[in-house]
Amino acid sequence: MKDLFVSYIHTLQDTITARLETIDGKAIFQEDVWKRPEGGGGRTRVIEKGNIFEKGGVNISQVHGKLPETMQQYFGVKDANFFACGLSLVLHPKSPMVPTVHANWRYFEMYNKEGVIVDQWFGGGQDLTPYYLFDEDAIHFHTVCKKACDAHDPTFYPTYKARCDAYFYNAHRHEGRGLGGLFFDYLKKTEERSMQDWYNFVTTVGDSFLEAYIPIVERRKDTAFAKAQKDWQEIRRGRYVEFNLVHDKGTLFGLKTNGRIESILMSLPPVVQWKYDHHPEEGSDEARLLKVLKNPKEWV
Amino acid sequence: MKDLFVSYIHTLQDTITARLETIDGKAIFQEDVWKRPEGGGGRTRVIEKGNIFEKGGVNISQVHGKLPETMQQYFGVKDANFFACGLSLVLHPKSPMVPTVHANWRYFEMYNKEGVIVDQWFGGGQDLTPYYLFDEDAIHFHTVCKKACDAHDPTFYPTYKARCDAYFYNAHRHEGRGLGGLFFDYLKKTEERSMQDWYNFVTTVGDSFLEAYIPIVERRKDTAFAKAQKDWQEIRRGRYVEFNLVHDKGTLFGLKTNGRIESILMSLPPVVQWKYDHHPEEGSDEARLLKVLKNPKEWV
Repeated sequence: MKDLFVSYIHTLQDTITARLETIDGKAIFQEDVWKRPEGGGGRTRVIEKGNIFEKGGVNISQVHGKLPETMQQYFGVKDANFFACGLSLVLHPKSPMVPTVHANWRYFEMYNKEGVIVDQWFGGGQDLTPYYLFDEDAIHFHTVCKKACDAHDPTFYPTYKARCDAYFYNAHRHEGRGLGGLFFDYLKKTEERSMQDWYNFVTTVGDSFLEAYIPIVERRKDTAFAKAQKDWQEIRRGRYVEFNLVHDKGTLFGLKTNGRIESILMSLPPVVQWKYDHHPEEGSDEARLLKVLKNPKEWV
Repeated sequence: MKDLFVSYIHTLQDTITARLETIDGKAIFQEDVWKRPEGGGGRTRVIEKGNIFEKGGVNISQVHGKLPETMQQYFGVKDANFFACGLSLVLHPKSPMVPTVHANWRYFEMYNKEGVIVDQWFGGGQDLTPYYLFDEDAIHFHTVCKKACDAHDPTFYPTYKARCDAYFYNAHRHEGRGLGGLFFDYLKKTEERSMQDWYNFVTTVGDSFLEAYIPIVERRKDTAFAKAQKDWQEIRRGRYVEFNLVHDKGTLFGLKTNGRIESILMSLPPVVQWKYDHHPEEGSDEARLLKVLKNPKEWV
């Protein structure tokens, strides 16, 4: 399963970065292959200053070794070793009309001190963070997510959509980071489902990413925008930073396992503003977005 | 002691904001008085888009009530109530030649369920975060800090200078947030020192703030700078954000005690950049700063 999924994310990284370069038309991904001193490494691909993408990364990594003390406490285990691999992507478009997107698909194995595998699971998802709300974009993204889920189980979409809303939540702001999508974790072997079943599900979602996101980019990339709308995007990017640094378990896992810092923090936007006590005008497009972030909707 | 210190920080806020407005010459502080639903409140004063200060806040607050669950665990107590008051300030100058400064002086009381005071302490400090390193500024700031300490005990400066370097440390970047200054916490009654002694020490430091910072502002405020130097400031501000959101206990305490979010996060800079894997040129002024941040110096 390790080899199968590592091979899958290698191919998926190639597919996604090639398609993003084509649509951007200007910038190309800079690749950094890195090694983790304690075991494993990764292949980071970052795009900057493109026609469409102001900054973004599509990274794969496979790391292994002794499970750090803090993570042992978290999982309630002792003397454990681990293997983790995954693909993580975040894209911050230049235009505030094109939404930011995040996706991640990962696989984890845990071993006892004899090296015997004691646990294994998949996790991941994909979610959309717009700066201006176009209902048809939200509906499209969620429709593709639902289709990927429904191919495996009709209960998956409602379950993982709700988990996504709950997870990507800036509790200190009482608002969602974005419009959600899918989030799942600890997908483990059960009586009904083998690890191969979960692999099939997770890779169906991974394969759906470009179909979920690219049509939105194509629809919005040439829409004109004003300086005030760019400012609003940069202020909202501040909320993205707050979520990733204060709440995101993936970021904290990376920091605690001595991951490559530049690969973990590639998720942070290129330019961000924090204005004191900023509130959009009532009835504005900006206020309408906030309303939906405070009250997640069912889009399909 | 509660009333004495509350009165002190009220007066100090007035003194500091008046002096900062005079030196800025353009922007004035916007005041927001707020109440905390669970008890207490504060007086936030924020300055934006000044001649000198791009963004800054000088805030006082006094909050009280039931100690939140997470804080009870932290302190190892049960059914405790608390009172906390303090002044917190952060100033982000427009010019990269003028350093950012942070200061905080606070007093804390804890009560058992009968309302009897079971613990009380002072904490705080002040520290400097430049974007370009002028040795004479660092020496001036630390000299004033040392003088304030030496008036009370010759061991204070070396002790609290070292704690400051240890506390304001971005572990995930292996570098200090800035050039340090003073940091102290849990200043409690001992055989040698009463709470009144600690009050005298903390207020001496509070009173030294303007003398420590203003001469540096006056020396650097008219120095010309280039776009590339402003970019460097905005990239370094990213490290400031990372420290405050990932590591700073004060920020986390505020978020966990349902503090006023806009008052807590006023510490975040107005405009910030994250560039992928940015490294200054060897031998440059920027590289020289990084070298000192990785190896804290004795300035006096």
